[in-house]
Amino acid sequence: MSELRRDPITGRWVVIAPERLRARDVDAVHLRGGPAGAIDGDMCPFCEGQESIAGPEILAWRPPGSLHNTPGWTVRVVANREPALRVESSLGESSSALFQTLGGLGAHEVIIESPRHDASWSTMGAEEIQRVLWAWRERMRDLRRDFRLRSFVVVKNHGEASGATLDHPHSQLVALPMVPQHLDAALAGARTYHQATTHCVFCDIATQEVATERRMVSSDEQTVAFAPFASRVPFETWIMPRLHRAAFDEETDSSLAAVAERLSDVMRRVNTTLVSPAFTLLLHTAPVGEERSAAYHWHLEILPRLGPVNGLAFDGGLYVNPVAPEESARALREAVAERSAVLLH
Amino acid sequence: MSELRRDPITGRWVVIAPERLRARDVDAVHLRGGPAGAIDGDMCPFCEGQESIAGPEILAWRPPGSLHNTPGWTVRVVANREPALRVESSLGESSSALFQTLGGLGAHEVIIESPRHDASWSTMGAEEIQRVLWAWRERMRDLRRDFRLRSFVVVKNHGEASGATLDHPHSQLVALPMVPQHLDAALAGARTYHQATTHCVFCDIATQEVATERRMVSSDEQTVAFAPFASRVPFETWIMPRLHRAAFDEETDSSLAAVAERLSDVMRRVNTTLVSPAFTLLLHTAPVGEERSAAYHWHLEILPRLGPVNGLAFDGGLYVNPVAPEESARALREAVAERSAVLLH
Repeated sequence: MSELRRDPITGRWVVIAPERLRARDVDAVHLRGGPAGAIDGDMCPFCEGQESIAGPEILAWRPPGSLHNTPGWTVRVVANREPALRVESSLGESSSALFQTLGGLGAHEVIIESPRHDASWSTMGAEEIQRVLWAWRERMRDLRRDFRLRSFVVVKNHGEASGATLDHPHSQLVALPMVPQHLDAALAGARTYHQATTHCVFCDIATQEVATERRMVSSDEQTVAFAPFASRVPFETWIMPRLHRAAFDEETDSSLAAVAERLSDVMRRVNTTLVSPAFTLLLHTAPVGEERSAAYHWHLEILPRLGPVNGLAFDGGLYVNPVAPEESARALREAVAERSAVLLH
Repeated sequence: MSELRRDPITGRWVVIAPERLRARDVDAVHLRGGPAGAIDGDMCPFCEGQESIAGPEILAWRPPGSLHNTPGWTVRVVANREPALRVESSLGESSSALFQTLGGLGAHEVIIESPRHDASWSTMGAEEIQRVLWAWRERMRDLRRDFRLRSFVVVKNHGEASGATLDHPHSQLVALPMVPQHLDAALAGARTYHQATTHCVFCDIATQEVATERRMVSSDEQTVAFAPFASRVPFETWIMPRLHRAAFDEETDSSLAAVAERLSDVMRRVNTTLVSPAFTLLLHTAPVGEERSAAYHWHLEILPRLGPVNGLAFDGGLYVNPVAPEESARALREAVAERSAVLLH
């Protein structure tokens, strides 16, 4: 069974998950450096028709009358085959003087974003992306009812350089029994700012980026996309709602529609500027109990993975970014937000 | 000119260094994903005989009578050709309400660890590694006299997956005008522990690892090498002196000799266990003003880079480690610490 361990110096949590070593994908990529997608093609467990291999569905977007665990879905959520954490685990906390451990309690779900193996966020269109956001939201709403869970992370890895082990478009939702250090640090910073100013730091950043324009990528009445001031990597882009909201799963369908439009627009800009790069997309949202926080604001971070993480930046050390965010934003702003399908003609 | 920017939410510092984009190596690796070592071979600027290409030497280990900037050296320190930070820059702090910037003041030096292109830490032997440690120490001692500098990071990247852009064995010393967030977090944790216990948390960890043995890799009277309890990646190994010392550059020659022996031993174990993996080695040492801290303890972190950093772990997020540190340590402990040169026969 996996377990969560806390570093006695920094408080950083790590999941020790020996079970994942048996998963062929992890083994191939992490221990032998094999290519992503090695088990893809007609073997892909996420393709339509392979529902029994992907596993029983927890949630799916299906036409009326369509049966569970059969073809016909547009988005499908299943348990990760080799989960880092499980709801069946117990919290079983144990600590020695220095070493604190939590049982591997949590959830590790996979959102299969399309029945089509070669779909991507730059070709899927806003309506299809909206169904992915809907699945994230519905799963979070459900998991929040488990009082043992404290926080959520949603990650979408695309391309080998991001750590993705399957090409079929998918994202992962991880629910945790504690608040990971990087979210804790952001919460602490946001609270300090709120105490000093009575403002949400994210709202103030959005207002300032819209006003100065230099780092804006695109926007509409409900959403903004911009290159953050202290971008860690070239073409890093954040998307957030203009209206203050701490938790992603408090968003309405119409808000999700606006976010999906922005995401679709940004991913097409990224794709035409960088030619289908590997990327990581992270959803940061308020932990359990902070859903109505006036200080924190949910947002999406898109991080193109144009090269390996330099050792200097490992573990959030020192990032050296060779492209100023103002230049990244200008390039993305000027990019035609075409669907890449059009470009392929 | 480069500049340091502070993220207004987390306080994380990022170096925005557009100048580095002109460096052929950065361009090749970060924007086009080209292989490391593309400019190696007889073009390698770090090889003996190419001293004028590598640049004027700041420090070198040379036999008596040998001339500066000519062959004959065993270790040679030069300025990075495309530095992220420069001592010639001014601190030039500027801030708006949200966005804090520091001028790109600092130092970015390259330690060329051997005149031989194909040398490695598993073949060099302890005496040669000791000269590298000597160079790190001497440069820190010199740079500490610049009162504008606040902290140091030494990083050695080996192999493409670590972000290394040259195969010739080298490390980098970065001196910073502020304390980066990850060092600050470790200092804060160590201070909290010290206040509660009057002990150094690193000393207590070393004592406990020696006593329980499960995570030990190797040790002697002066040094310990072990897999840390909350290891982030498979085969992560830390090396530290048993005697409490906050700053690396306070070590004597004889202490450096013991550390070099331990490093040589561990690198040979890692190399026979994992077959010449890419790795990142980081030296964490007390910032300026904390050289005699009773709470902090310098140490080395060896992080094999067996795959890309998964998006979940990006920026120090959530690491999922499929190999328990107890298993990593056992494998390294049982590995014969032979020089890989011997194995090649």
